[in-house]
Amino acid sequence: MDRDQANYLFNVMRLDQGASVTLFNGRDGAWRAEVAERGKRGGALQVAEQTAPQRNPPDLWLLFAPIKKARTDFIVEKAAEMGASRILPVQTEFTNSERIRQDRLQAHAIEAAEQCGGTFVPEVADLARLDRLLSDWPEERQLMFCDEALFDRPSPLTNGDATSSGTGTPWAILIGPEGGFSDAERSRLHALPFAHPVSLGPRILRADTAAVAAMTLWQDRLGDWTAPNSDPVR
Amino acid sequence: MDRDQANYLFNVMRLDQGASVTLFNGRDGAWRAEVAERGKRGGALQVAEQTAPQRNPPDLWLLFAPIKKARTDFIVEKAAEMGASRILPVQTEFTNSERIRQDRLQAHAIEAAEQCGGTFVPEVADLARLDRLLSDWPEERQLMFCDEALFDRPSPLTNGDATSSGTGTPWAILIGPEGGFSDAERSRLHALPFAHPVSLGPRILRADTAAVAAMTLWQDRLGDWTAPNSDPVR
Repeated sequence: MDRDQANYLFNVMRLDQGASVTLFNGRDGAWRAEVAERGKRGGALQVAEQTAPQRNPPDLWLLFAPIKKARTDFIVEKAAEMGASRILPVQTEFTNSERIRQDRLQAHAIEAAEQCGGTFVPEVADLARLDRLLSDWPEERQLMFCDEALFDRPSPLTNGDATSSGTGTPWAILIGPEGGFSDAERSRLHALPFAHPVSLGPRILRADTAAVAAMTLWQDRLGDWTAPNSDPVR
Repeated sequence: MDRDQANYLFNVMRLDQGASVTLFNGRDGAWRAEVAERGKRGGALQVAEQTAPQRNPPDLWLLFAPIKKARTDFIVEKAAEMGASRILPVQTEFTNSERIRQDRLQAHAIEAAEQCGGTFVPEVADLARLDRLLSDWPEERQLMFCDEALFDRPSPLTNGDATSSGTGTPWAILIGPEGGFSDAERSRLHALPFAHPVSLGPRILRADTAAVAAMTLWQDRLGDWTAPNSDPVR
């Protein structure tokens, strides 16, 4: 336990000797532990038994352009709940936010896993420029890119090229900023061989709504909603 | 314009004569108007021309058990964005919240439509007991009910009985409270001929996340994401 965790357990929650807590480290599943000892400056936990196996989400990155604080926090929370394996804040031409607090966002991802009984915590990357990420894009990873201009396209991920990539393939979802992508960005995205533009329906969605909707479609079509025991994150 | 709207336009936004605003009333599409007159206590708008036709969502109700204030507001906002036609807060056995501010939630739905350029505002009903709503359930309306206990069921709405109900049929989505449904509620729901239990994947979702995910699945499979010009709300 670090000092903040000990403070939370013994001074905020005021756990007594013998009380049970659930532990997870993101790699070894969930374990029940008991308070073995508590003193003025902390205490000790005794690990009892494993209560859940480690369960990793599919290999899905979420790229998003940070927006105002509350909605950025929300996107990170939802990405952790919806089973993103990595969260990458990106700076696009129309992104307002030039800075993020990576440590605060990482803490939000941990808290979301705690709240939802998860055993996996997605890593939150530092803010990076979208154009550079695309230039260094990993060869096999497919990119689902939500284009507001595609209102009358067929439903996402039903076109052959996307579904034929299949489960097990690494993917990423890109959610644009509130102001949309620039024309240059949109042209570049459409030309990338690994990018799959999709529509999220006829209504304009806020970025945080679009993130949850896009992750739902992906998990439902290509992720683990139909195969709950898959465990493809390496 | 009512007094609040006039105050917003002329004292908060400080619009001058000739400035353009977009008007919608939920029935007649969107219209451009100009400030024709402004004085100390208000002003007048002159309607210029229609800028968008009326666009109604499919006939989809969202039933949800109110949770703490910020997340209840959020669910209403997301329901408006995702194209719910009516929003019904319901009291279940494990619902904590015994009161809602219907007027405040309705204002959130209007604001979400304004923010997203919508022309339709879903009505927010008063809080009602789930058991009574189910006893008086309208004959043809199908109910998609998100059951946390169904982790290993196949993907939602792919089973024959649900899809055969088809587009055009009135539907509702029911999202349970944070504590889940009671055993009695779950048994009753599973026995209802119009209820379709579905799974939202192997991870536990908060109620607000579940609401967006469930509306995404419905719009994608049975709603207007594939047929943007449908207009089935009567």
